[in-house]
Amino acid sequence: MRGGCIEPACRVIKLNPKDIELLDRFDAESLRSFLQRTFNLGEFTFSLTSLRKLPRFLRQEKPFKVVFVKEEKGLYLADILDEERPVFGLAIDLGSTTIAFYLYDFERENLLKEYSILNPQIKYGEDILTRLYLARKSEKLEEIRLETLKAINKEVERLNGESIYYVSLCGNTAMTHLLLGLPVNYLILEPYPPVAKWYGVFRALEVEFKVNPEGRIFIFPSAGAYFGGDLIAGLFFVELHKKEEPSFFIDVGTNAEVVLGNRDFLLACAGAAGPALEGGIFSSGCKAEPGAIYKVSLDRTGNQVHFETIAGKQPKCICGSAIIDLMAQLFKEGVLSQEGKLIKESWRERVIETEEGMAFLVYEDGQNKILIKEPEIKAFIRSKGAMFCILSLLCEKSGLSFEDVEKFYFAGSFGVNINVSSAVMLGMLPESALDKAEPVGNSAGLGALKFLKHADFEEIKRIVDSITYLELNTEPRFMELLTGALFIPHVNLDLFPRVKSLMERS
Amino acid sequence: MRGGCIEPACRVIKLNPKDIELLDRFDAESLRSFLQRTFNLGEFTFSLTSLRKLPRFLRQEKPFKVVFVKEEKGLYLADILDEERPVFGLAIDLGSTTIAFYLYDFERENLLKEYSILNPQIKYGEDILTRLYLARKSEKLEEIRLETLKAINKEVERLNGESIYYVSLCGNTAMTHLLLGLPVNYLILEPYPPVAKWYGVFRALEVEFKVNPEGRIFIFPSAGAYFGGDLIAGLFFVELHKKEEPSFFIDVGTNAEVVLGNRDFLLACAGAAGPALEGGIFSSGCKAEPGAIYKVSLDRTGNQVHFETIAGKQPKCICGSAIIDLMAQLFKEGVLSQEGKLIKESWRERVIETEEGMAFLVYEDGQNKILIKEPEIKAFIRSKGAMFCILSLLCEKSGLSFEDVEKFYFAGSFGVNINVSSAVMLGMLPESALDKAEPVGNSAGLGALKFLKHADFEEIKRIVDSITYLELNTEPRFMELLTGALFIPHVNLDLFPRVKSLMERS
Repeated sequence: MRGGCIEPACRVIKLNPKDIELLDRFDAESLRSFLQRTFNLGEFTFSLTSLRKLPRFLRQEKPFKVVFVKEEKGLYLADILDEERPVFGLAIDLGSTTIAFYLYDFERENLLKEYSILNPQIKYGEDILTRLYLARKSEKLEEIRLETLKAINKEVERLNGESIYYVSLCGNTAMTHLLLGLPVNYLILEPYPPVAKWYGVFRALEVEFKVNPEGRIFIFPSAGAYFGGDLIAGLFFVELHKKEEPSFFIDVGTNAEVVLGNRDFLLACAGAAGPALEGGIFSSGCKAEPGAIYKVSLDRTGNQVHFETIAGKQPKCICGSAIIDLMAQLFKEGVLSQEGKLIKESWRERVIETEEGMAFLVYEDGQNKILIKEPEIKAFIRSKGAMFCILSLLCEKSGLSFEDVEKFYFAGSFGVNINVSSAVMLGMLPESALDKAEPVGNSAGLGALKFLKHADFEEIKRIVDSITYLELNTEPRFMELLTGALFIPHVNLDLFPRVKSLMERS
Repeated sequence: MRGGCIEPACRVIKLNPKDIELLDRFDAESLRSFLQRTFNLGEFTFSLTSLRKLPRFLRQEKPFKVVFVKEEKGLYLADILDEERPVFGLAIDLGSTTIAFYLYDFERENLLKEYSILNPQIKYGEDILTRLYLARKSEKLEEIRLETLKAINKEVERLNGESIYYVSLCGNTAMTHLLLGLPVNYLILEPYPPVAKWYGVFRALEVEFKVNPEGRIFIFPSAGAYFGGDLIAGLFFVELHKKEEPSFFIDVGTNAEVVLGNRDFLLACAGAAGPALEGGIFSSGCKAEPGAIYKVSLDRTGNQVHFETIAGKQPKCICGSAIIDLMAQLFKEGVLSQEGKLIKESWRERVIETEEGMAFLVYEDGQNKILIKEPEIKAFIRSKGAMFCILSLLCEKSGLSFEDVEKFYFAGSFGVNINVSSAVMLGMLPESALDKAEPVGNSAGLGALKFLKHADFEEIKRIVDSITYLELNTEPRFMELLTGALFIPHVNLDLFPRVKSLMERS
C-alpha cells in the first residue's frame, strides 16, 4: 500500500537491539546509521525524549520500536517505546456544531474508532457569528478556546492520549481561530482577513493538546475567511486537484461552498445558501433527529401525505432533504406554481391560510402542526436559485458548460440524503447532475484522516495556493443570473429540458 | 559589522505599522511579504505566539518589533513586541566547577553582563566522575539535573528571563548529559559512548529553561566522551579551522585537552595532565583565591622566598602558576635536579625532610606551612611530561615540527596566568612556544557568546566532524615519548637549546 513518496504522518519501526551494532562512538549515531542503512531513511533529528531513553533500549534484550513524526522541514525521531505500546493518530473535524474524531492505528493502518460529540461552543451561540462577536473580547476568546480544548482533551484522554503522536485537525476559519486563540476582531470586519493562511505543524504543548508531549498537531490551512481548513481537507480527500476532467465539490453546511476544478485550476465560491437548503429557514424544519419526517410522498386524490419518521417516532418536524422532496412533488402535482405560490384550488384540504399567508399542511395532531409556509418557500427559492447560480457562474468563469463537468461531489449529510432528481426538478441543480452526483461523506474529517496516512504538506499547500476565490458580493453577473433562477425550475425552461417535457406532459 | 551570511541567533526588526500595507487576504501573509520585500528575508514560519499578537500590532499606531529566532532548518518569527522591550541572548559555559553567564543585547550588539556562579553539582562531588557514578541511578540523575536547572533558572530570572530569546550553552560531555538528563551509565564504561554527538536546537520548554517560552536553546555538540561542547565552543571561538597555518589550541582544566590543526585538519588529544598543572596534586596547592601565593621569587643567598598573595592576605596556599614558576626557579638555582629530586645541600634551610620524603619549604607561620614535596614533584613531572608528549605526538602524527606551528592558544585562566618561560624551562612546552603563546581567555564561554552573534550551525558541524581524536591509551608511541620527558626539561637536551645553554652557563 505504501508507495514511494506516500509517507504517513508517523512512521513506526520495530527494532531488535541484537541487530544494531554499536559501531559509532555515539549511541545516537549508531542508531542513526543503522536506521539509514536498513530502512532507507533520510536525515532526521532526535528528540530529547528519545535521547533520554536511547542508551537503555539499545542495550536491552527485548525488541522495541521507534516513532518518527513528520514535520514540514524534516523527520523527528520522537520517541522510543516498548514493543507492545501502540502508536495512534487522531483526526479531528472541528465543526461548529459537532466535533468528529477518528482514531487511527499507524502500525495496523486501520481506523479504530470514529464518533462525534457536540461542540461545547454551542452554549455561546448556535451560529458562528454570535460566537465571533463574543470572542472580540480577549477574555471571552480565551474562555471559548479553553472550553473547546477541554472538550477535545476529554476525548483525547479517553482515547489513550499518551499513545497519540499525531493530530490532524481541520475546521472552518472561525473554528480554527477559536481553537488556537487567534484574535477574531478583524475576521468579522470587511475585508475579513484571517490571521494566517498556513499554520503548519505545532508541538502538542503549544496547542495544549493532552496527547503525547512529543506529539505533533497539524492544522489544515485556510484559503480565506469563508473557505477554511474543513474545505481544504475535503478537497484533499476528494482530489479534484488530481483529476483531468473538471468536477464540482459541493459542501452544504452553514454556507454552501462550491469548488469547480481539476488539476489545472480550482475556482471557489461560497454563498449563504446553506441554512435554507438544510431546512433551517422553515419553522417546521429540523435536522435529522428522532421524530423528523425524512421521507414523504403525496396522494392528492386520497388527500394523504404519506411519510416516514426517524426512529418511527410521532412526527414533530421535517428535515431538509424531505422538504426538498416535498416541494418537488408539490410542484409536479401543480400545487406549487413556478413563482413559488401555493395554489389553493389544487388541494383545498391541505393548502390553508395562515397569518403569514398560504401554507401547505403536512401533518397535524393534537400537539403538532407541520406546515410549509409561502414566505419560507420564497426564501427557499432564493437559496436554491443561489445554489444554481453559483454552479452556473463557476462554469461561466471557467469557460465550461455543465456537460463538461465530470462529477458533482456532495460533502456531508446533505449529499447523502438529498434526492438529486427533486433538486433538479426545483432547479437547484442542473439536469446533468442527475447521473453525476456522488456523495462523499464527511469529506472534511476524511481529509484530516487521510493526512495521517499521507502527510503531504506540499500537496496541501498546492491546493490552498491554487484556489481562486470568487466574491459573490462584487460579482454583478451573479445578480443577473439569480433573477432567472427565482422560478421553479428556471425562467429559461430550455436549461431544464427533462423538467420541461415533464411539465408539458402533465 | 553584519556580513552577508553572518547571521545572529536572533534577528530583531523594528517596524512601523504605517508602512505595512495590508495587501494580502491574510494578516500573516501581509506581514510576510512586507518583510521579505523590505528586509531581504527568506522563508520563515510564524509561531503561535506571534500569530496571536499579530492582528492588534498591525493595526496599532505605535511602532513595534518582530523577533526572529534561527533554527537549523529555518527561521521562526517567534514573537512580536512593543518597541521598548529588549531582546537578549544568554551564553552559558556550564563548567564542572563554575557556570559562566554572558548576557547579550541582540539589538545593541553588546555584552551587558558577564559573571560566574559556582556549579551546585559540587555538593555531589568535586570531581566529575563521582557525580557520574552517583547519576547512574535515574532518580539521582534527575536530582542533579533539577539542581543544575534550578541554579541556572535563578540567574535566568535575575537577568529578565522573559526577554531572553536564545540560549547558547556549552559544557563538557558529562555536564551536557547531566543538564539534559541523559543517562550516563554507559558514558563511564569502556568505550565511553556519549548518548549523542549533535543536540541541535531545543525549545525552552523542552530543556525547562525559564527564558521566554518562544526561546530556543542551542547546545554545543560533543566530539567524544573526552572532547565536549566546551572545547567545540573554544575551537569555534579561536577559529583554528579557518587558519592557513596550523596552531595548537590548549585547554587545561580537569583534563589537558589539546587540538592541533588548521583549515585542513583538526587532530585532538586529551590526557589527565590537568589537575597536576592546575596545582591539584600539591597538598599546599590551591586555586587562585584570597591568600593564595601567585607570584614567587627566590633569594638563595638571603634565604628568602619573596612572594605576593591574592588580595594581600596572609599566605595559606600556592596556586598552580606560582608552583610552575617556583619549580622553574628551583631548577635554575640547582635546588631541583633534572630527575626531580630536591638537593638538600643546595639550600639547607629550605630543603627539609618530611615523612613523605624531602620537601621545599615555601612559607611557614604559626598556623600554616606551605610545602612542595618530592612525591608531588614526581607527579608534576609526569603531568608536564604528558603535556609535552601530547604536543609532540600531535606534531608527529601531522608530519609537522613545533616550528611549523604558528600559535599556541591557551584557553582559560591557566593560559592567562602561566609563565611560558617557566613552563619551557621545565620542559612542559617546547621552546618555540616562547614567542607563540597567546592566551584566549575563557574560550568556551566566548565561543558560546560568539554563537549568539554568528549562529552558523554548519560551521560548528564541520568542526565536530573534522576532529580526529587520538586515543592515548592505545597509542604505543605516547609511552615511548613519555620516557624521555620525565626529566627536566628532557632527556634530549637538544630539544631545548636555550635551556641547555642556560644550564651550561650556570
